[in-house]
Amino acid sequence: MTEGARVPAERKRRRPTSSGVVLSADLIVDTARQLIDAQGAQAFTVRKLGAALGADPSAVYRYFRNTEDLLLALADRLIGESMVGFTRTGDWACDLRDLCLRAYRSALRHPQIAVFSTVRVTGRPHERRAVDTGIGLLLEAGFDEATAVRHYHTLIDTALGHAAVDAGFLRLAPAQRTADEQAWHAAYGDLPAEEFPSVHRVREQLPLMAGSAVEPALDLLIAALRAAR
Amino acid sequence: MTEGARVPAERKRRRPTSSGVVLSADLIVDTARQLIDAQGAQAFTVRKLGAALGADPSAVYRYFRNTEDLLLALADRLIGESMVGFTRTGDWACDLRDLCLRAYRSALRHPQIAVFSTVRVTGRPHERRAVDTGIGLLLEAGFDEATAVRHYHTLIDTALGHAAVDAGFLRLAPAQRTADEQAWHAAYGDLPAEEFPSVHRVREQLPLMAGSAVEPALDLLIAALRAAR
Repeated sequence: MTEGARVPAERKRRRPTSSGVVLSADLIVDTARQLIDAQGAQAFTVRKLGAALGADPSAVYRYFRNTEDLLLALADRLIGESMVGFTRTGDWACDLRDLCLRAYRSALRHPQIAVFSTVRVTGRPHERRAVDTGIGLLLEAGFDEATAVRHYHTLIDTALGHAAVDAGFLRLAPAQRTADEQAWHAAYGDLPAEEFPSVHRVREQLPLMAGSAVEPALDLLIAALRAAR
Repeated sequence: MTEGARVPAERKRRRPTSSGVVLSADLIVDTARQLIDAQGAQAFTVRKLGAALGADPSAVYRYFRNTEDLLLALADRLIGESMVGFTRTGDWACDLRDLCLRAYRSALRHPQIAVFSTVRVTGRPHERRAVDTGIGLLLEAGFDEATAVRHYHTLIDTALGHAAVDAGFLRLAPAQRTADEQAWHAAYGDLPAEEFPSVHRVREQLPLMAGSAVEPALDLLIAALRAAR
């Protein structure tokens, strides 16, 4: 099944729009991605998409049933792109880490799309392939069916959760980002030992709180899974 | 330091507004919370806040320097509320799990506020207290300063990451939530074994993918920390 295939093929046409562009589901998804990357998901409308395509907005509905359908196709496209080059090495733990980090990094490359892509279930081809691969690695590790599903859920939601938080940071205004990064020094660097004994003790190390914790989180989770087998 | 204390006290007044309300930093934060809970963070403006308070919007700026200052005070208030009743039991692992779940549940109770509260560093009293407590538990467990900071960062960002993803689900329209919950059955329940062998094998267990993975994630992380001591 390809993107937009739920709309009967006879409703699609391959002749150029008024601006000479030949529409396709792929082109529509690419253009939606550019619009959302630039302006955010909140500002996205099919009207703006039509304008960017040089086509009447209604043309979009020959490929996608509604905005929801289009956004899920876009989320699925990102999953597909994130998995390009993925190969199983025979080491289930290493491959699971790779798969989860690919999901994380894909969201970070598109922080405005991550707002919805980290939350939804696309149910589409690229997600199906990724879920089959991830659960397959846990079955290969020796977990039973229910445990493999639970662990996959935990791993992928943790990767996507860190992506949601870290992408949220990237969506902040530059002054907000700077304030938050400096807070571990500015607001925490000089707290009194009597009232904040632990923060005072680790004050030199607190800047380690800035940045992403996705890799240490995945490493600890996978260490626990290795031990649980 | 109390909320809004950075604004000189003489700029505040305790006389009632035109509608008879006596303004305070607490009342402003409470009213902002109600507005954002009901309408979302994107729709929030100090103009609407003034209208809800029955006061001129400019009155807000006698208590908070700007919207940023107010929203961070609100985020910090939620941290404070989440920690009410928290007590150290002497079991660092159990207490860390409790602390992280409190952060998670607080965000879930206010999914519209979680949009920004899970991303920011407030640097304020309630957050300082929570950070001091969390890092203190890891020092108590025997980790050195840098490792305690790294593990605290990993645990709290994982809890907040799951909160961001799960709160995002709660912000979906009811039809979208239902579609996503059912997708594990509808889109995944009947995939062909040849193409999706692992999904096919676990098809009865796939509905376990719906719901939150925050507790299994924290349990695995803490199991790994116990083993790493």
